[in-house]
Amino acid sequence: MTRFHQFVTDGEGWETKRVEVSFENPYLQIQKIQVTSPSRSEAFEWTVCHRKGGVAVAAQTPEGGFVMIRQERVPFRESFWEFPAGQIEESQGHDQEAIIATGMRELEEEAGYALGQGGEVESLHYYASSPGFTDEHVYMLWVRGVVPALGGSHQDPGESILEVRVFSGAEIVGMVRSGTIRDANTLCCLARLGAFGAWASNDRTGIGE
Amino acid sequence: MTRFHQFVTDGEGWETKRVEVSFENPYLQIQKIQVTSPSRSEAFEWTVCHRKGGVAVAAQTPEGGFVMIRQERVPFRESFWEFPAGQIEESQGHDQEAIIATGMRELEEEAGYALGQGGEVESLHYYASSPGFTDEHVYMLWVRGVVPALGGSHQDPGESILEVRVFSGAEIVGMVRSGTIRDANTLCCLARLGAFGAWASNDRTGIGE
Repeated sequence: MTRFHQFVTDGEGWETKRVEVSFENPYLQIQKIQVTSPSRSEAFEWTVCHRKGGVAVAAQTPEGGFVMIRQERVPFRESFWEFPAGQIEESQGHDQEAIIATGMRELEEEAGYALGQGGEVESLHYYASSPGFTDEHVYMLWVRGVVPALGGSHQDPGESILEVRVFSGAEIVGMVRSGTIRDANTLCCLARLGAFGAWASNDRTGIGE
Repeated sequence: MTRFHQFVTDGEGWETKRVEVSFENPYLQIQKIQVTSPSRSEAFEWTVCHRKGGVAVAAQTPEGGFVMIRQERVPFRESFWEFPAGQIEESQGHDQEAIIATGMRELEEEAGYALGQGGEVESLHYYASSPGFTDEHVYMLWVRGVVPALGGSHQDPGESILEVRVFSGAEIVGMVRSGTIRDANTLCCLARLGAFGAWASNDRTGIGE
């Protein structure tokens, strides 16, 4: 039995009456839960897919380019251009230290980049990938001032990373417009950065192409 | 046995050798698949969680406000402020007609809004919610010129929508900054809109609060 992080707890007005494991493998656990909620005082059932927490990294070089990897994504039988990302070990809490350690490890392993002198790491909160069905949530980091790591990348044999490249802000805008960037990790990081004025387009042409 | 949409097919260099269903209920199907990929010619196994395709709707009133719902999200035991969204029936293809019909249905059912005279619907491509583990993908629509629907909302008894409200662009920026908006549907729509200059902040203060 996997040990789980304690991220999800009964919030105000919520009570988890029962959790039954319907299916489990090393990557996910399907739970049938019985719960009451603020709007439903009579217990009802829900299917929850439990996954590890994740960390996605928006990493910029000193020149402002974003580090991206092109990775094979088996459920889609396609490769996607994405920000580096990875999962937090179940045995770890989701404190800032674990989140940053996970993010920086994935940035180095997947892309071969590390924090340079004077670089900065900022937390961008988390997002929920599909909150009606899974408790998966991904913390986002904004890392400025990354440089090629001395040892290069060390890719996990279970991952298939085909390319690593640095894209300018203008290229990122084009890739979001065209749908080339289409994974939630990268898009949610960009939405958060956009709310801080750190990324966006001023060009309103071309919508709906 | 559920009928599945044909969204995922073997792309160039991919070959699906075997699909074995490990678990299934009305909401998801866990598949153990055996596949070869462009970078791995020897067949390997992967767990794929199959889900229906979805549609999320960034709907703006004629004044530019965004329609949002506050919804209980059982996997998190919390409620989230989100754009209206729903799933495409498995029996339907993922053509524009089905996507728009699903999006407009959810906008009306969940939020009680419909397209007004002179309103416009534009497609914003799709995003993948967690492409390492699930084929779930959500089409995004940008609907401008929505008005309260004559019949109001008709919420599904299985959903718990607590509030419907229209937020200004400035309020949305604040909610993304604070982490109040934290679901992939809404953030991915905002990232796409941001790439078209249709949403963003020009205020760079406050990052990392």
